[in-house]
Amino acid sequence: MTLIVQKFGGTSVGSIERINAVADRVVRARLAGHDMVVVLSAMSGETNRLLALAHDLHSDPPAREVDVLLATGEQVTIALLSIALAQRGCDARSYTGAQVHIRTDNVHGKARILDIDDARVRDDLRKGRVVVVAGFQGVDEDGNITTLGRGGSDTTAVAMAAALKADECQIYTDVDGVYTTDPRIVPEARRLECITVEEMLELASLGAKVLQSRSVEFAGKYKVPLRVLSSFDDGPGTLITHEESGMEQVLISGIAFNRDEAKLTVKGVPDQPGVAYAILGVVADEHINVDMIIQNVGADGTTDFTFTVDRTDYRKATTVLEQIAKKLRAREVTGDDRIAKISVVGVGMRSHTGVASVMFKALADEGINIQMISTSEIKISVVVEEKYLELGVRALHSAFGLEKGQVRTGSVTHSA
Amino acid sequence: MTLIVQKFGGTSVGSIERINAVADRVVRARLAGHDMVVVLSAMSGETNRLLALAHDLHSDPPAREVDVLLATGEQVTIALLSIALAQRGCDARSYTGAQVHIRTDNVHGKARILDIDDARVRDDLRKGRVVVVAGFQGVDEDGNITTLGRGGSDTTAVAMAAALKADECQIYTDVDGVYTTDPRIVPEARRLECITVEEMLELASLGAKVLQSRSVEFAGKYKVPLRVLSSFDDGPGTLITHEESGMEQVLISGIAFNRDEAKLTVKGVPDQPGVAYAILGVVADEHINVDMIIQNVGADGTTDFTFTVDRTDYRKATTVLEQIAKKLRAREVTGDDRIAKISVVGVGMRSHTGVASVMFKALADEGINIQMISTSEIKISVVVEEKYLELGVRALHSAFGLEKGQVRTGSVTHSA
Repeated sequence: MTLIVQKFGGTSVGSIERINAVADRVVRARLAGHDMVVVLSAMSGETNRLLALAHDLHSDPPAREVDVLLATGEQVTIALLSIALAQRGCDARSYTGAQVHIRTDNVHGKARILDIDDARVRDDLRKGRVVVVAGFQGVDEDGNITTLGRGGSDTTAVAMAAALKADECQIYTDVDGVYTTDPRIVPEARRLECITVEEMLELASLGAKVLQSRSVEFAGKYKVPLRVLSSFDDGPGTLITHEESGMEQVLISGIAFNRDEAKLTVKGVPDQPGVAYAILGVVADEHINVDMIIQNVGADGTTDFTFTVDRTDYRKATTVLEQIAKKLRAREVTGDDRIAKISVVGVGMRSHTGVASVMFKALADEGINIQMISTSEIKISVVVEEKYLELGVRALHSAFGLEKGQVRTGSVTHSA
Repeated sequence: MTLIVQKFGGTSVGSIERINAVADRVVRARLAGHDMVVVLSAMSGETNRLLALAHDLHSDPPAREVDVLLATGEQVTIALLSIALAQRGCDARSYTGAQVHIRTDNVHGKARILDIDDARVRDDLRKGRVVVVAGFQGVDEDGNITTLGRGGSDTTAVAMAAALKADECQIYTDVDGVYTTDPRIVPEARRLECITVEEMLELASLGAKVLQSRSVEFAGKYKVPLRVLSSFDDGPGTLITHEESGMEQVLISGIAFNRDEAKLTVKGVPDQPGVAYAILGVVADEHINVDMIIQNVGADGTTDFTFTVDRTDYRKATTVLEQIAKKLRAREVTGDDRIAKISVVGVGMRSHTGVASVMFKALADEGINIQMISTSEIKISVVVEEKYLELGVRALHSAFGLEKGQVRTGSVTHSA
């Protein structure tokens, strides 16, 4: 007997027809002999509808009450799915986050799960029932309803799977898995059969939007076997694995990119201790997040200091920098908000050398100038002119042979 | 410091504008120095919308899951009102039935309240907060969400008022109080300043639809001062009182009526012990409720047996009766589904004689034939031909001088 946690997002439960389709899928898995826990989001559009009502009443509605309001969204879908399951002769019980004691801290709107009391769920599973749990929501120690923020239902599913020691946590989405890169840009992009948690985290933080980083972190921490699949077809999806052993390794798993950043440079800063802090301190004071940071050593006793920020913070950052530049007697502040970041990600980098040179050569061959470089153990990111984004991603996809199918395969097979 | 429980129904919270109006009303009462607990229904139409979704999935959806579904309706309105109160600088906390431990039995769809743990509410009130509670819902001892059935929000309000020993429980509706009779039939009908619980119960059970009987019973049992008022204007409404002492008594408080019944007669039944049971037993077996019952003593060793049932059960009852009539060797079964029941209600009947003769004379003066009579300590009901309903009600309203203002007045004044 295997225990499967399945999670369906808002588009998968967005209408009566789709709820019926989810019920069919759950019943198939149940009939195949699996113990089933299902985690649901609110119907697509419902959260925004409720938020609009709140904002009609208050420009800044209290977070506690917004959570009470939004939590109704999943409560509707869990009841409806349980009713659809009953129609199929399948005994099901729905539970809100509070009812299965998904205990969180009290940070309304972005609460973190502390623990789950799984006694009630286990009891239902023993009785052969399908358990349907509201995603995205929990309850703090005073009994207040909390919500987990964007992508919170994924986190609920992974947390349930961790608490129940499920054999697999299946996240159903509108894509059929994790791809080597965005197929809208590279038609040859290929679905990965498996990917490690670390790679998935890098891809998620770098702009791939399949899974929320928090749920992947959670899966990594509690070693939950996580699979991303499509609600709309029957492919095996992509398995997110926890071990590299037993796999034939490839250099690179995927290519991520984003055009959400802007670049700022303070030129001719006196090259003295404390300069980086003097500059980044005022930026942080303005609550501007900094991503990549580069400082070149200068020849004339001055240095150039470059970093990237969210594109929406570009103007504010420029203003702040011009003030501090004057104070520091720097030469000038320049900036560019038409940049793109491209990253190659792969655990293979750990054991293989030469990834960076393959990357830089591929870009040079297309005449693409690299403006900034940043690396981690399993990732290399470059900043280029925004207009080169698609060309650069395609060149790298081809240079690393990503269209040619993965050599490595995981040992776990699709089980629902 | 007085503690007021205010309850607003679905039409009173049916839109953002109306929720704002309720918030204004609550803030006024708060600023007047009252401790405030507010009980809300779902937005009008929402319960039916949710039920339609459930029935799209299942012709007979499981009651437990329907309760999970319907309970979202009030959860939305309590959050929205709390947000509207926050906009006015008024600290408010919303609670679902489960959160304030409105513990019920486990009869989903028509659960009964067993007790309320008021610790949390009292704590909030001490902190100066307005407490906003979801009506219509509770939680059973296993933590399952339950609902109380039609009119359940009134019951929640009265139960909260009883638990908190509130100074007054105010039920806001779309009428401005309890009338001597339906003003659509008698334009001279007058709002009552006060009425006793017993009278209110008789009026409610006889067809007056202002308050659900259960909430009035509850108010009677726990001696909760209950007031019915309009959400849309500022009148004092009608106070439902628990004592007759200190009041100048009037004979009659109001006239109720309904045309929801049908009359059936089994004629020429052998006048033997057990006949009533033989007839009513088979009717009860078919789950048909019987209201008035009359048996005439016959002269020729037979008797006529007449009773009324819900008009929707008329055909079924006729079929059942024809079978039993044959068995009992009764002469024939006749029936009439064009009848109306008119009742006069008043605690004054206890100490005053002659009410019945005033009633019968008034009807006779209009040439209205009385088909059946039934009495209780504070009520006289008659069945007449349906076409005489309006004429009869008007004649009685005038005969008892109900348009002339009440002599008795209560000692409690309107306090919000």
